[in-house]
Amino acid sequence: MGKRVLNFFAGPAGLPLPALERARDEILDFSGSGMSVMEISHRAKEYEAVHEEAIALVRELLAVPEGFKVLLLQGGASLQFAMVPLNFVHGGKTADYVVSGKWSQGAYKEANLAVGAAAKVAASTESEGFRRLPRVDEIRHTEGAAYAHVTSNNTVFGTQWRTFPGTAGVPLVADMSSDIMWRPIDVRPFGMIYAGAQKNLGPSGLVVAIVREDFLATARDDLPSMLRYKVHASKNSLHNTPPTFSIYILRNVLAHYKAMGGLAAMQVQNEEKGRLLYGCIDAHAGFYRGYVTEKADRSVMNATFHLPTPELDAAFVAETRKNGMVGLKGYRDVGGIRVSMYNAVRVEDVRTLVSFMEEFVRKHG
Amino acid sequence: MGKRVLNFFAGPAGLPLPALERARDEILDFSGSGMSVMEISHRAKEYEAVHEEAIALVRELLAVPEGFKVLLLQGGASLQFAMVPLNFVHGGKTADYVVSGKWSQGAYKEANLAVGAAAKVAASTESEGFRRLPRVDEIRHTEGAAYAHVTSNNTVFGTQWRTFPGTAGVPLVADMSSDIMWRPIDVRPFGMIYAGAQKNLGPSGLVVAIVREDFLATARDDLPSMLRYKVHASKNSLHNTPPTFSIYILRNVLAHYKAMGGLAAMQVQNEEKGRLLYGCIDAHAGFYRGYVTEKADRSVMNATFHLPTPELDAAFVAETRKNGMVGLKGYRDVGGIRVSMYNAVRVEDVRTLVSFMEEFVRKHG
Repeated sequence: MGKRVLNFFAGPAGLPLPALERARDEILDFSGSGMSVMEISHRAKEYEAVHEEAIALVRELLAVPEGFKVLLLQGGASLQFAMVPLNFVHGGKTADYVVSGKWSQGAYKEANLAVGAAAKVAASTESEGFRRLPRVDEIRHTEGAAYAHVTSNNTVFGTQWRTFPGTAGVPLVADMSSDIMWRPIDVRPFGMIYAGAQKNLGPSGLVVAIVREDFLATARDDLPSMLRYKVHASKNSLHNTPPTFSIYILRNVLAHYKAMGGLAAMQVQNEEKGRLLYGCIDAHAGFYRGYVTEKADRSVMNATFHLPTPELDAAFVAETRKNGMVGLKGYRDVGGIRVSMYNAVRVEDVRTLVSFMEEFVRKHG
Repeated sequence: MGKRVLNFFAGPAGLPLPALERARDEILDFSGSGMSVMEISHRAKEYEAVHEEAIALVRELLAVPEGFKVLLLQGGASLQFAMVPLNFVHGGKTADYVVSGKWSQGAYKEANLAVGAAAKVAASTESEGFRRLPRVDEIRHTEGAAYAHVTSNNTVFGTQWRTFPGTAGVPLVADMSSDIMWRPIDVRPFGMIYAGAQKNLGPSGLVVAIVREDFLATARDDLPSMLRYKVHASKNSLHNTPPTFSIYILRNVLAHYKAMGGLAAMQVQNEEKGRLLYGCIDAHAGFYRGYVTEKADRSVMNATFHLPTPELDAAFVAETRKNGMVGLKGYRDVGGIRVSMYNAVRVEDVRTLVSFMEEFVRKHG
């Protein structure tokens, strides 16, 4: 095996090595079954144990209380962009969208395709290039809306909600694809949380959703089965064949988080990574030019900045790659550099990158 | 590693060992990248090569001609049950459903949820317990229908179309989830073919679809993006993050088929497995009581039969398990025994099972 690189991809992203090593060791013979977990019927007891453990670990790590269902779905957050409004916007109701970046904009656009003008923009910072989050006083909530939708972390632009905005009694629905489990959160204020797995949870092709039962009760009953949350909830996400191997990797990743000390331990690491990286940016603010204008809105998952010229951006990406660090090129809408530091990125990995950044500014600054 | 069992599960099902060994060897370091393939951005060149190779292998093995798109989708065949009518039944059109088993019935029911009475039953053998396929003269095609839907192989009941029914000029849409690539076929008569991967192609959570471009052109343009075939086709199945690891395993499985001699070689093996298994059933017809009444309709993928008593059925399942053979219990709607013999099941595996069956009938017959 070659040397493992330091993986700063924005997603699919690095996974904890122990989760992958466990998969390697079991891939031909899962749990003494004489089969790979991906070769086992989803109705067989060997798979059912994995399914239940994955769900139980989501509940345990996020302290999901009674009255919430945990669902394992397919189609990425992008399918949730359609399913949320299809299920919850009906009977003359509307839905509010807080547009703070590329994916929340995507969620709004898909809601518009699904339910038309019933989807409303409650706030947007697009005119400012999404360099900050909307302030609470800028958000116009619609009375009696079915829900208010927010994206917890903006992967492309590098902003993140530390405190979620109040919603005047309307259920809050959050796309947490790029920061779920970065720290402990209080799940209770949310009507629904959903997250594509491919940043903090596992491989792509799997979505974890957490739905409050009283909110779920307001969902439609007349959609095709695969688009109906109530069907997935009533069948414990076994209405049809689930993505069994992806759920198995989710189990491995979450078991690793638990062994590491759970989400409190993740938060300590993530805050330290953010402190190191933004510390370097702020120490060389003329060279590493942060994209986000409000420091309070900075994401500890995705840090975005530009170097003084596009040529230096390109040199930075090329040199990091030579030094075994990949995935640092910024998203095409923003350019520059993006450092994605999901849970699998270790403090020492960020320390290595920051050392490189110090050296790079000495050479080119 | 423990001994690998003989896997007769109906799906998720056994996969070719070389495809899994390749995954094991590369799981921490794909192609010298220093990452698992599931840790690589779906926009990175290392993943793109896998994506393109998987699609190229589908095209090569099935001899998919120009004028057809190959799509890689999520949500299983169950989501296709909704997407097919949502995309193609509009503008006053209807769709015909040939109902020959559990999953074609499911496809019809979901179409009914999606487009109401515009989904029509063109034929059904439900009143006969799906023990045979509808005869061609029993199928009532609707003139000008958007498509006629058929399920190529009925996993639960054990029937399979050797020759697909004509459709009076209406595009034929086939769910081939449980027998795609069991042999070479002529793709040209089909408007669309779709297949969940978890029987003959790879892990669950991935769907392969083949769509004729002139049929695709009739699909709706106003659905949410993830539900729109035209979006997936125009983005080469990279509209959102695809299930990258599942596609990687698909690549491994298809590369193995190619190395084995392609689908012509698969057919030789599959016909031989069917000959062995049904030969044993017919030689002991009073003991192994085939569920399917028309021998011409028998599936070479899933053979279904009952022993003289439910106790003997249970004893058969228990003893096969003791002998390292799993997955032989019949589906709950049918009971008895089901022998699933997808491409990964080798002729020698069926020979082992048949030897067991000969011994079992000597002891209990």
